[in-house]
Amino acid sequence: MAAYTFFTHPMSRGQIARWALHETGVDYEQVIVDWANKPAALMAANPMGKVPTVIHHSETGDRVITECAAICAYLAEANPEAELLPSDAELADYLRWMFFAAGPVEQAILGKSMGWDVPKEREGMVGFGSFDRTLGTLRDHFAGSDFVCGERFTMADVYVGSQVDWGLTFGSIPPEPELVAYADRIQARPHYKAAKGIDNDLIEEMRK
Amino acid sequence: MAAYTFFTHPMSRGQIARWALHETGVDYEQVIVDWANKPAALMAANPMGKVPTVIHHSETGDRVITECAAICAYLAEANPEAELLPSDAELADYLRWMFFAAGPVEQAILGKSMGWDVPKEREGMVGFGSFDRTLGTLRDHFAGSDFVCGERFTMADVYVGSQVDWGLTFGSIPPEPELVAYADRIQARPHYKAAKGIDNDLIEEMRK
Repeated sequence: MAAYTFFTHPMSRGQIARWALHETGVDYEQVIVDWANKPAALMAANPMGKVPTVIHHSETGDRVITECAAICAYLAEANPEAELLPSDAELADYLRWMFFAAGPVEQAILGKSMGWDVPKEREGMVGFGSFDRTLGTLRDHFAGSDFVCGERFTMADVYVGSQVDWGLTFGSIPPEPELVAYADRIQARPHYKAAKGIDNDLIEEMRK
Repeated sequence: MAAYTFFTHPMSRGQIARWALHETGVDYEQVIVDWANKPAALMAANPMGKVPTVIHHSETGDRVITECAAICAYLAEANPEAELLPSDAELADYLRWMFFAAGPVEQAILGKSMGWDVPKEREGMVGFGSFDRTLGTLRDHFAGSDFVCGERFTMADVYVGSQVDWGLTFGSIPPEPELVAYADRIQARPHYKAAKGIDNDLIEEMRK
């Protein structure tokens, strides 16, 4: 039995979790989820029925992990030999930008795609303030750093990098040079290419 | 010099970070931020000028942490003697619910308070699906667990617990018995009371 069960769909954020699985080099069994007929094992693990959902069959029992960012963080911690965890000096950036991407960035992109406007006087109460300010903050970070934690690739780049990569691909993030250059560095990772290749093949097969 | 500089405002989510600081028992210097005249040191650390922002004056240099959840997670990791980190068996729940609260829960509450509706056919593309489904998932977790990771209080409860506590206080989360009981357990923490007391005193002083 594989160490991990991975519920996914090739046209979903499951792509991010697959990349994280490949970066850590763990053995996993994939279950492609049919939206119209979700597997009972998925619904038992995650009543929201969302993908990606990962189950780690650990020595001391099964552990369910949901939320893309949490899956990335978990895989890095559970597999320290992959060296994707931050050092003490990198920890602040690692956590700060993981949660910045999962919170404000995600909200800003969603709000823009749904046409939700934040009235100026309420920007203070909204975590992301404004789309431009949030994306500008992210851009400015990558103006001075190759990766989330500086010069070294960590698991935070799988999550933050995927947000940037997807946003640029779908046009929900403006093609600022600093973000485009970061996405280029992300796409150059061999495990990114391997994971993407598997999902692209699955998508093509579904279209036949 | 204190180990941490803490930029906050008593009427903000800075309350969450203050509680986290007290749970870890670290020495901190607070800087109360005047919205109309934000300190240069805050703007240098966090160009978004958001509070809470924390600077850790570590032995190897200053580390800036923003985002409430990231501040909680950082403090737990940087101060393991406080025993607020998860065990291996608790790690999946710890990360899953921290990110669930920072992402879907935050989005669902914000959307409701702003009057943003997710059309039924787009629920699949929205991370939180629907307000009811997101809050129902959270409630169901606490039907079976006293805390985020089961029987033991961890740093995840500072963040997730604060979300629930605030939501119930402001009426943005429905008073489901499981969530109310969880908030009661949260409010019983001595460090919760100590931190809350400081912010309440500051608020009272500002009103004079």
